Amino acid sequence: MVTRVSDLLRAPAGPVDLQDIATNVTPGFTGKGKLDAEAATIRLGPRLALLQEQLYAQGRVGSERSVLLVLQGMDTAGKGATVEHVLSLMNPMGVHYHAFTAPTVEEREHHFLWRIKRRLPPPGIVGAFDRSHYEDVLVARVHRLVPVAQWSSRYDVINRFEAKVSASIRIIKCFLHISADEQRRRLRARLQDPRKRWKYHPHDLDEHAQWADYQAAYADVLERCNTEVAPWYVVPADRKWYRNWAIGEVLVEQLDAMGLAWPPPRGWEPDAECARLSRLAAQRP
Amino acid sequence: MVTRVSDLLRAPAGPVDLQDIATNVTPGFTGKGKLDAEAATIRLGPRLALLQEQLYAQGRVGSERSVLLVLQGMDTAGKGATVEHVLSLMNPMGVHYHAFTAPTVEEREHHFLWRIKRRLPPPGIVGAFDRSHYEDVLVARVHRLVPVAQWSSRYDVINRFEAKVSASIRIIKCFLHISADEQRRRLRARLQDPRKRWKYHPHDLDEHAQWADYQAAYADVLERCNTEVAPWYVVPADRKWYRNWAIGEVLVEQLDAMGLAWPPPRGWEPDAECARLSRLAAQRP
Repeated sequence: MVTRVSDLLRAPAGPVDLQDIATNVTPGFTGKGKLDAEAATIRLGPRLALLQEQLYAQGRVGSERSVLLVLQGMDTAGKGATVEHVLSLMNPMGVHYHAFTAPTVEEREHHFLWRIKRRLPPPGIVGAFDRSHYEDVLVARVHRLVPVAQWSSRYDVINRFEAKVSASIRIIKCFLHISADEQRRRLRARLQDPRKRWKYHPHDLDEHAQWADYQAAYADVLERCNTEVAPWYVVPADRKWYRNWAIGEVLVEQLDAMGLAWPPPRGWEPDAECARLSRLAAQRP
Repeated sequence: MVTRVSDLLRAPAGPVDLQDIATNVTPGFTGKGKLDAEAATIRLGPRLALLQEQLYAQGRVGSERSVLLVLQGMDTAGKGATVEHVLSLMNPMGVHYHAFTAPTVEEREHHFLWRIKRRLPPPGIVGAFDRSHYEDVLVARVHRLVPVAQWSSRYDVINRFEAKVSASIRIIKCFLHISADEQRRRLRARLQDPRKRWKYHPHDLDEHAQWADYQAAYADVLERCNTEVAPWYVVPADRKWYRNWAIGEVLVEQLDAMGLAWPPPRGWEPDAECARLSRLAAQRP
């Protein structure tokens, strides 16, 4: 029996201390390192693309099912890079990416899940959330944007919401786990490389200074919202090549578990249509 | 001076007869055939991805510019396949794909451009329209969904609309030009391959039977809406490998012409931020 990466990375049951979970390890990866992992990630492509196309095809003939990949993690953890390197292995036609930033004035006038519900992937689509409703128990908590009583009631609200939508949406939540040292290295690289500076904002350093508060807030998320229908995976992300491979592998495993297949014709018969085509060809428009 | 594929494929000025434009030729391609073209398409990837990331980066720091690729063509011409093989060379984060199908009840209550405007690419984004507002002078005309006076007034409306949005959106319109014979071959392949049957609908054969009417309607589109700010390119598309390479090449040429570059930092100074990062590192959260 093969151990699935999904099982190896599943957030532990019970209290979580992120300091106990290494950021530079490579669970389930049996290759030799970076080059092997990059090749292995590319090799996931055809399988990922096939599963995604079957999901899309079923969406076209009436299935309600879709997939939602939720990406959370500190700045520079690689949420965007995961989209670039892993979701790019699928057909862009079937991938809906959305980054949630600070809520707009209109969004703040609504329940915190309002803007989330509007972006849920429609049937057949693989949705990717770069940040999500979890920001409402992360940044909202660390920056005290709302009273304690308000954010602390949101975990249960989120669990009920995810349970409800999981009837049609397979939810895959990945926490990209990096160390503070690694974040500093990556922020410095952004500052020093003219091709990366556009990703930087001085605000990023203010956030970095609140590292411990964010880690505590993430620990509570992983403990309180790690359900069977919407599990959390903790992806060690100091090594970018492992992060990409692991998330690709988790996606393959989770899509595989959906039992996808090519939909049969609905309401028409291939042989009859072929005969009709031959008759039309004989008339030659 | 190198001849650009954009120039070779630009729709001719004046009246267009699609029978005079070959569907199985390969203008501008100097390689040996399929394998060469597929390799050449892959080699466009890094340049396409770079240009798209610069566009995205500029969108993040206040530029209004975006790109819109309009894909039109008969069923099986390869609108979806272009997205799969060419747009997949870019980061899915910066690509917004939308397929326009028959208008909904709500959409029919509005002006025909209403649903189009809602899907225009926001700043920094490469939008791809799989069918578009041109359906309102194609299917609407062939199937007589509206009176002649109504659809025939739309060419000017479209030109004015495109001229207006071209202030911020670089519009690239590709007509994927296949022969009726090639369409029959591809429809038959869809019918015979269980992996492709989901793309088929008996309606496709009814459309095929109206081939000549559609060709005439397309000819008028290419003649009347081929403007400097929103040019039409006629892409010979019987050979899938040429179609993919040619559209990739046109995209590179058009994005190149935008004079994109990495945006400089706005409101902060790299050295000062590096020093701040070093101070924070010394405190070690």
